[in-house]
Amino acid sequence: MLEDKTPQRTSLSQLGEFGLIDHLTKNFDVKQPSTLKSIGDDAAVLDFKDKKVVVSTDLLIEGVHFDLSYMPLRHLGYKAVVVNVSDICAMNAKPTQITVSVAVSNRFPLEALEELFDGIALAAKFYNVDVIGGDTTSSQKGLIISITAIGEANEVDIVYRDGANNGDLLVVTGDLGSAYMGLQVLEREKQVFQVNPNNQPDLDAYTYLIERQLKPEARHDIKDLLEKLEVKPTSMIDISDGLSSEIIHICKQSKVGCNLYEEKIPVDPQFINVCEEFNIDSTTVAINGGEDYELLFTIALEDFDKIKANPNFTVIGHLTQESEGIHLVTRANTKIPLKARGWDALSEE
Amino acid sequence: MLEDKTPQRTSLSQLGEFGLIDHLTKNFDVKQPSTLKSIGDDAAVLDFKDKKVVVSTDLLIEGVHFDLSYMPLRHLGYKAVVVNVSDICAMNAKPTQITVSVAVSNRFPLEALEELFDGIALAAKFYNVDVIGGDTTSSQKGLIISITAIGEANEVDIVYRDGANNGDLLVVTGDLGSAYMGLQVLEREKQVFQVNPNNQPDLDAYTYLIERQLKPEARHDIKDLLEKLEVKPTSMIDISDGLSSEIIHICKQSKVGCNLYEEKIPVDPQFINVCEEFNIDSTTVAINGGEDYELLFTIALEDFDKIKANPNFTVIGHLTQESEGIHLVTRANTKIPLKARGWDALSEE
Repeated sequence: MLEDKTPQRTSLSQLGEFGLIDHLTKNFDVKQPSTLKSIGDDAAVLDFKDKKVVVSTDLLIEGVHFDLSYMPLRHLGYKAVVVNVSDICAMNAKPTQITVSVAVSNRFPLEALEELFDGIALAAKFYNVDVIGGDTTSSQKGLIISITAIGEANEVDIVYRDGANNGDLLVVTGDLGSAYMGLQVLEREKQVFQVNPNNQPDLDAYTYLIERQLKPEARHDIKDLLEKLEVKPTSMIDISDGLSSEIIHICKQSKVGCNLYEEKIPVDPQFINVCEEFNIDSTTVAINGGEDYELLFTIALEDFDKIKANPNFTVIGHLTQESEGIHLVTRANTKIPLKARGWDALSEE
Repeated sequence: MLEDKTPQRTSLSQLGEFGLIDHLTKNFDVKQPSTLKSIGDDAAVLDFKDKKVVVSTDLLIEGVHFDLSYMPLRHLGYKAVVVNVSDICAMNAKPTQITVSVAVSNRFPLEALEELFDGIALAAKFYNVDVIGGDTTSSQKGLIISITAIGEANEVDIVYRDGANNGDLLVVTGDLGSAYMGLQVLEREKQVFQVNPNNQPDLDAYTYLIERQLKPEARHDIKDLLEKLEVKPTSMIDISDGLSSEIIHICKQSKVGCNLYEEKIPVDPQFINVCEEFNIDSTTVAINGGEDYELLFTIALEDFDKIKANPNFTVIGHLTQESEGIHLVTRANTKIPLKARGWDALSEE
């Protein structure tokens, strides 16, 4: 049917709602044993046997959470899945299913939605999650994506935000701040492009940062890794809004204080170079940047030996009594109260 | 804190994202034993023990799915829950949890969101479902609501769309078409209001229709009722897009045909009166109207005696071999092929 149309721009109205859903979801295989019934009925049916079920949801709005002028639709689809899978990983659970709802305005041809769903399918395959349902509808303006992620875990393995104790170590996976600086690079290039559309940008010096922004990955490897090391975190959260914001969440819910050490915060050399180029303080970005989708967790002090040699983990601080407050200890050894704030709020000071 | 502000219009930016979520969700109690952890972590944690898990999701967009000029926000919140709970009921499962994501533009004050969440809370209480998570963000335009509903059922009780057999009876709960005519009444009043804002409409003759449109209910009573009658449907679906569309879904997925009898379709007397007033063919609306959220199901012929005296159920047709096709048998005893089409498509003929 579709082959008769102009291959580049097929109007969504040619397919109709049910035709569109069939077309976009036909490549979604069922791989999880817990998926009894996937797309095609009023609801999906799942069977988790003796496992607990973990559920998280996120809403992504064009112009608020992403800018299609530098975010290719395939990457956006991939990232939308990652953001939700990351929340399941932050519970120390295994992601198993997602539902995907999409609303688009008429300006999107079928081929654009195919790109988006290609990215969703790629991420679903990589993270081994089944796409079990969703909704496709029209919007008044722009693209809207709503994803709900479902995971499973043994009750004893689940890690909440409120289990951290005075004396625990604060640990982070990977490195921080690069996703934010990748966004700064892309926004600068967009402005250059608007002035001179013929300008061909040389982005070789920014590849890592741009990849961290456009194709982040959820740390679905950490659950198995910690299991092998025989470490169960006392609390855990994923870094979506920025390190300081997440530390404050853990401290408030666990009723503890924290000392975060500036010199310990892991960053990439490319990140340092680009912060200098942009004349931005790298620590401020590493602390407030967001969208890194690394995991932040706390462990008992006696578990330190088990993780200290592992390149995936960096100890960046330790927890204190609640009354001591939440502080950044700078390289100059001064203590600054940590606040949850994005870059924009900071730059007004 | 809030008491110091002007009570009528509190800007959302005064609260911030986390403050807003805390404020809007503070009244959501946990009632379901399957909810181990609700709002407040990266994800909710649920425990269904030996039950199967049923999941459905819907995305509602202002200007596409609802019009705030005649849909009060409290009703909208209520209806958004109903639409999703109805999908769980259509699996013959018991709704247990929902997640609620909302995006709003800056034109909405806090008080508007409070109205919306009051409606959501009211429906959650009525249907005994826990609100276990969600997301609150800004939109570029209008109000966007994404709800995922979760339910539980014994595997043996779950009813799919694909189990109908040749010779089965086609049964519907309640009556049809009124929600659509309620919408017509509201749209007419909106136009009258735009011409003369001082005109006070007298809507007494339309109360049932308007209630069906603004405050529909999901048939969460039907599962227990069928259990008491010892009837397990062979297939089931909820009527959201219109009777003809849902019959076609069941027939296609079950590989059967169907004869639907015009004279059997249950409608309310007020509905008939208003169709006459609007000069619209009542059968066309009853078949294509949508948004009634009644349940359509099929039963084995030998179960007829168990349901025939029950005022909740009307037998409206019977299933045939697939090769016989899907037809409406009119009062004049002519057979017309049934098509899935909304009112707008029809009116072009």
